[in-house]
Amino acid sequence: MSIVVQKYGGTSVGDVDRMKRVADRVARTHRDGNQTVVVVSAMGKTTDDLVSMASRISERPPERELDILLTSGERISMSLLAMALHDRGVPAKSFTGSQAGIITDAVHGKARIIDMTPGRVQEALDQGSVVIVAGFSGVSQDTKDITTLGRGGSDTTAVALAAALGADVCEIYTDVDGVFTADPRIVPGAKKLDHVSYEEMLELAAQGAKVLMVRSVEFGRNHGVRIHVRSSFSYMAGTWVGPEEDKVEDAIISGVAHDTSEAKLTVQGVPDRPGVASRLFSTLAEEQVNVDMIVQNVSSEGRTDISFTMPRGEAGNARGVLEALADEIGAEGVRVDEDIAKVSLVGAGMKTHPGVAAKMFGALSAAGVNIEMISTSTIRVSVVVAKDDVETAVQAVHAVFGLGDDPLPEEVH
Amino acid sequence: MSIVVQKYGGTSVGDVDRMKRVADRVARTHRDGNQTVVVVSAMGKTTDDLVSMASRISERPPERELDILLTSGERISMSLLAMALHDRGVPAKSFTGSQAGIITDAVHGKARIIDMTPGRVQEALDQGSVVIVAGFSGVSQDTKDITTLGRGGSDTTAVALAAALGADVCEIYTDVDGVFTADPRIVPGAKKLDHVSYEEMLELAAQGAKVLMVRSVEFGRNHGVRIHVRSSFSYMAGTWVGPEEDKVEDAIISGVAHDTSEAKLTVQGVPDRPGVASRLFSTLAEEQVNVDMIVQNVSSEGRTDISFTMPRGEAGNARGVLEALADEIGAEGVRVDEDIAKVSLVGAGMKTHPGVAAKMFGALSAAGVNIEMISTSTIRVSVVVAKDDVETAVQAVHAVFGLGDDPLPEEVH
Repeated sequence: MSIVVQKYGGTSVGDVDRMKRVADRVARTHRDGNQTVVVVSAMGKTTDDLVSMASRISERPPERELDILLTSGERISMSLLAMALHDRGVPAKSFTGSQAGIITDAVHGKARIIDMTPGRVQEALDQGSVVIVAGFSGVSQDTKDITTLGRGGSDTTAVALAAALGADVCEIYTDVDGVFTADPRIVPGAKKLDHVSYEEMLELAAQGAKVLMVRSVEFGRNHGVRIHVRSSFSYMAGTWVGPEEDKVEDAIISGVAHDTSEAKLTVQGVPDRPGVASRLFSTLAEEQVNVDMIVQNVSSEGRTDISFTMPRGEAGNARGVLEALADEIGAEGVRVDEDIAKVSLVGAGMKTHPGVAAKMFGALSAAGVNIEMISTSTIRVSVVVAKDDVETAVQAVHAVFGLGDDPLPEEVH
Repeated sequence: MSIVVQKYGGTSVGDVDRMKRVADRVARTHRDGNQTVVVVSAMGKTTDDLVSMASRISERPPERELDILLTSGERISMSLLAMALHDRGVPAKSFTGSQAGIITDAVHGKARIIDMTPGRVQEALDQGSVVIVAGFSGVSQDTKDITTLGRGGSDTTAVALAAALGADVCEIYTDVDGVFTADPRIVPGAKKLDHVSYEEMLELAAQGAKVLMVRSVEFGRNHGVRIHVRSSFSYMAGTWVGPEEDKVEDAIISGVAHDTSEAKLTVQGVPDRPGVASRLFSTLAEEQVNVDMIVQNVSSEGRTDISFTMPRGEAGNARGVLEALADEIGAEGVRVDEDIAKVSLVGAGMKTHPGVAAKMFGALSAAGVNIEMISTSTIRVSVVVAKDDVETAVQAVHAVFGLGDDPLPEEVH
């Protein structure tokens, strides 16, 4: 008998009618003879509503209590789904993250899973029940307090359970058909990918593709969990995420991701001597600033500019930290540019195909898009461009690599 | 340092503003130097809303899942109250019933507390935190599932915690000023009682006074917890519930309670031979019918009528059971009367003062109220009357014993 883990997001269980449709699908999976575990998020806007209630009570709600508050959303959806299944003649039991053995560290709001002890889940499966587990939540090993796993945490719950139970597949149900070669709202000709490797999915997720969160993909890769990203509104196959050797196609490039949530900070005129960059970024790390791309220009007259990108919401805080530091290290100043976007090309094949970056830069140039920063990994090339250029840039790069059905723009013929 | 347990009902924490007022009061108790434990119910109509959502999902929601669903209401209010206290500079930690060590049997929807292990509560108190505990919920000793204690369960949570922690007082905050000699909506001159004994409070609660639930009073009596029933909207003293020797006044009668939630069932023409009544009521017990008052008339020509009262909502089910049984035992028929009310006079002093029942019946007769059933305990006299007569009956009895400020009605002078 195979074990299937399914995860349904907030939109999929957005109201009572959608919840019933999810129950129909779960019932079908169960009747097909699978041991079925279902991970659910809170219904629709429930989490947002709870956050807003907290903000009316307190300007800085303590994180331990915020975690308790937020997990009530999943508690509601998990019990309702169990009821809907009972109504369909399918035995079902719901468990909180804590009851399901999702053991985390004590970092409230973004806890990390450090152990999985899903004994009660396995027992209920063996008794013939569908098991429903609250996504997003766990329990701290040290304090026994309720924790949450942060944004997209339900994906991680599902993949972690699939790993611990040795499931055959972890199905992530969402409101799109799978992973696309680019955001279809920007590139109408974008195609659904049948398969991406863990490494490609990690890069796509890290570079702005919102369909799966980085941590769930990492968990899947580390434990060899096959993930199937698919739509809860149809029975079509979606995108499989797995080891590279599973891929049958031989595409060089998987897709283009973009991210408009970052800002670029530049420390200008930094004295070019050993230890200065280290001092700069260790100070930012101490202040919990999440630095993404880093670029240092070549030195001119003993001074250099250091630029990096980071989440825009935290840029004000980082600017303060840097301005204090600039004086100490003798830098000339700090500049913040909030109107940037990051465009990334991802593909496992680029490891063995030189010239990919050059072709990408050529397409951008032909489309009149100026490149402000560049950073690469073995399977990714990312550029920072002006925010106003993001659509043009994504379209041009998508077209030049022939990723979809869109015609090549005139300029790059 | 004294330990105070406070319980706030759903009306007291009905919205964000009321929650803040509760936080002010709790903060004051904490700053007065008390170790403070707060038990909260779900906000306002939350529980009703959750029940209605469940009924849209399933006609007969499984009770295990219903308990999980309903406890999310308390989870929301407990975490919000903790946040509001933090905002006031008061350290606070919230715990679920399970985390607070409220160990129950596995009867979902009306679990009974079988053990208390509030180690985490005591530890947090010793660290200087206010501790907030979800009312109404616990965890089953055998199955480790989440359970609820039934209607009014938060009172029981509070009293049980007060007992386990050796608290100096358990304050039950509600939307009325305390326990009254009668319902002030029916008897405008009804007076607030400064003190009632556990036994009197048990009788009053069992006979329809809604301010405290029977089980919480039982728990208080068995463990000697002093209970203070008071308003969350004022700082006036309310009603103390404690051992009889605490009373300073020497009143014979404490108050008049009434209950319009029952129906009267009569099995007519029952053969008058040993074992028939036993058969009747053991069958009802097997069907979980909650029988209250029982009256058997003297036999005439070898047959008798047996009447009893029970919750009106379950009368249909009981009628079915009885009609099947009536054939078997050779009874003549079953009659159901839904338009009844029960009026009860309660007072510890009546043990040593003969004539109380006679005086009550005289007042009812003078007011033109017909008595359908009578039942007594050592400190209570209850009568069943027509539902239309309930106000007249309560007023007449309240007046004849001079319980309030209301003038004696003309008729009973």
